[in-house]
Amino acid sequence: MRGEPQSFDRVLSSMCTEPHPVAREAAARFLATNPGDPGTYPTIATLELEAIERLGEVAGLEEPAGYVASGGTEANIQAVRIARERADLERPTVVIPASGHFSFRKAAALLQIDLREVPTDDDHRVDLAAAKAAVDEDTALVVGVAGSTEYGRVDPIPELGELARSVDALFHVDAAWGGFVLPFTDHRWDFSDAAIDTMTIDPHKMGQAAVPAGGLLVRDESLLDALAVDTPYLETTAQATLTGTRSGAGVASTVAALAELWPGGYAAQYERSRANASWLAARLEELGYAVVDPDLPLVVADVPDRAIDACRDEGWRLSRTGAGELRIVCMPHVTRRMLEAFLGDLERVSQSLEIPVPGDD
Amino acid sequence: MRGEPQSFDRVLSSMCTEPHPVAREAAARFLATNPGDPGTYPTIATLELEAIERLGEVAGLEEPAGYVASGGTEANIQAVRIARERADLERPTVVIPASGHFSFRKAAALLQIDLREVPTDDDHRVDLAAAKAAVDEDTALVVGVAGSTEYGRVDPIPELGELARSVDALFHVDAAWGGFVLPFTDHRWDFSDAAIDTMTIDPHKMGQAAVPAGGLLVRDESLLDALAVDTPYLETTAQATLTGTRSGAGVASTVAALAELWPGGYAAQYERSRANASWLAARLEELGYAVVDPDLPLVVADVPDRAIDACRDEGWRLSRTGAGELRIVCMPHVTRRMLEAFLGDLERVSQSLEIPVPGDD
Repeated sequence: MRGEPQSFDRVLSSMCTEPHPVAREAAARFLATNPGDPGTYPTIATLELEAIERLGEVAGLEEPAGYVASGGTEANIQAVRIARERADLERPTVVIPASGHFSFRKAAALLQIDLREVPTDDDHRVDLAAAKAAVDEDTALVVGVAGSTEYGRVDPIPELGELARSVDALFHVDAAWGGFVLPFTDHRWDFSDAAIDTMTIDPHKMGQAAVPAGGLLVRDESLLDALAVDTPYLETTAQATLTGTRSGAGVASTVAALAELWPGGYAAQYERSRANASWLAARLEELGYAVVDPDLPLVVADVPDRAIDACRDEGWRLSRTGAGELRIVCMPHVTRRMLEAFLGDLERVSQSLEIPVPGDD
Repeated sequence: MRGEPQSFDRVLSSMCTEPHPVAREAAARFLATNPGDPGTYPTIATLELEAIERLGEVAGLEEPAGYVASGGTEANIQAVRIARERADLERPTVVIPASGHFSFRKAAALLQIDLREVPTDDDHRVDLAAAKAAVDEDTALVVGVAGSTEYGRVDPIPELGELARSVDALFHVDAAWGGFVLPFTDHRWDFSDAAIDTMTIDPHKMGQAAVPAGGLLVRDESLLDALAVDTPYLETTAQATLTGTRSGAGVASTVAALAELWPGGYAAQYERSRANASWLAARLEELGYAVVDPDLPLVVADVPDRAIDACRDEGWRLSRTGAGELRIVCMPHVTRRMLEAFLGDLERVSQSLEIPVPGDD
C-alpha cells in the first residue's frame, strides 16, 4: 500500500502517542478478535475483564465495572446516556465546566439533552459558586474535568461530587487524558477521593495503549443496565456498549500496557513529561511569551498566529486553545530534544519574519 | 501477556473473519495514527478519502461521501441520526423490516425515535404491502436490509426506495455484511439501482479488513452536515463522526484490502463461500434437517438445541436465529474441511445423545 504512517517526531498537538512496544505487539496479535461477541471470542472477553480490573486500580475503584470503549468520546456519551436514562426527566440538563471536552456537545446533540456550561475561574478550573447556582432539580449529571484538554487543569472533584449528590444527580469525571498521570500527583480526583459515579479514563492517551482504547468505569455495575439492549444472534444476551463489533486490539494492548507500566513505568513517564513541561514553560517565558503555568504536562503560551503558522510550515503539528494560544501536550513521544528543535525553529521563524513577541516592550 | 488469540478454525458464528494478510499488515503499521485528527495525521486522513472512493465503487456511487466508522452499529446509528435531524418531527419514526439488525434498536433508544417494525414474508424478506401501510408523514427514514443477519436475505431495495420518496423520508440500506458479496449477484441493492440516501457497508466483515472498519456512505455530502459538531483544539474545525479519536488501523487495512481484492479477489471468495453454503445446505438436508434455502452464503437449519449445545462443548462457535435455528455464516475463514469436521461432530453427538432429527419420521 502507498504511504507510510508519519513519524511522531514533530507531533506536539496530539493527546495520543506512540503505543508502548508491548502494547503494539499485543494489538497486532489480537487484531482479528471482537470483544463485542464474547461467546465467539472468549479469550479477548476475559482480557477485557482484566483491563477493567486494572483500570479500577489506577482510578481507586475496588470493584470496578465498565468496558473498553472506542475512545473518550464514546465513554463520555455513555455517561451522559446513563444519567439521562436514570433521571427520567422531561428535559434533563448536564452541568459542565466550560472547559469540558467537545464530545459533551456531541453527546448533547445526539441525546437531546441540555448542556448548562459553567464558567471557569482565572486558573481555568470550574467556578464552584457558579456550578452551585447552575444545578437544580432538572440536573441529571454534573461533570468534572480531571485534566482539561486545553490547559490540563483539574476541577475540585470532591466538591463537585457533593454538589451532584445534593440534587440527586450523577457525577461523571472526565479523566480521559489525565487518568494516567494524576495518580502521581497530590490531586484528589479518583473514586476513593470523591462520590464519583462514572469516569472516562483512556488507555490510548497517556496509558500508551493502541487506538482504539477508551475507558468507561462505573462505580456500580447496575449503572450499565440503562445502556443494555437485547442481542439476538449473539451467544450472549445483552450489550451495553455504544458500538457492536469492537476492537480486540485495543483491549489486548490495554492489558499489555498496564501490566508493563503500572505503576512504576507510568510514574517515571509522568516525571519525564512534567520535567519537559516545566522546562518548556521556563524557556518560553525567557523568550518573552506569556505562559500559563503548567500543572499537568501540558503547556499553553501566547504565541502569535503567524509564528504558529510558520512553524507548521516547518512540519510541526501544533494546536491552539479556543482563545488562540499555542498548546503543547508533553506526551511520552515528546522528548527534550524535540522541544529544543521546536524552540529553535520558533525563534528562527519569528526573527526572519520579524514577528514581535507579545510580552516584549 | 498471557493468553493467545484463539484460532478461527471452529468459528461458524461470526460475521467477522481473519483479516487478509495485506490488511493485517497495513493495520499493524498504522496502529498509532488517528484519522479523527486529520490536521495532525494527514497521511491516514488522505487514506480515508481513498477508502471512501473505493467503497463507493463497490456500492455503485460515483461521488461518494462518508467515513470509516467503528463498525456497522455506528454507521446505522448515524444514518438514523441524519434522518432524525433532517426530518425535524416531534416524534420521528423509522420504518424497518423485522429482520433489521439489533443496532437499530440501540439507535432508537439512544436517539429517542420510534421504530415501526414491518413483518417479513415467508422468505424472510420485508412484506412490501405491510411496509406501505407503515409509512406516513411521521416517517423520517425507511430501512432496507441487503443481506440480513439471520437469513442473509435481500429486501426489495428499489421498491423500498420509492416508498421512502413517496413520504419524503430518507432511505437507508444496511449492507454491513452483504456489501462485499452482493456485487457478484443479480440483486438490485446499490446506489445505482435505487434511490438510496445512506448505506452501511463494513470492510471488516466480508471485506476482510481488520476491526474496527465499518463503512457509512452517503449519496450527498450535505447529509453529513447534520452530524457535524465544532472541534476546538483540533486543527480541523468540524467532526461528523460519532467517535472522536479513531483507528488508523481500520482505515489503512480497508484501503489495503480493497486495493488487493476488488473486484477479482472478492468475486472468487464469493464463489467459494457460496459453494460452501450450497454444499452445507445439501448435506444438512440429507441428514434430515429442515434447511432454509441459502441465497447469500449463510445457512440456517432447524437443529435441536441439545445438539447445538453438544457441538459447542466440542469447541464449535455457533449462533442461533431468534427462532432458535442453527445459523452458520460462510465467512472467508470457513473452509469445506471445517464444515466437514463440523458435520462429523454433529452426527456423532446426535447419535451418542440419541437426539432425534426434527424432520425424521
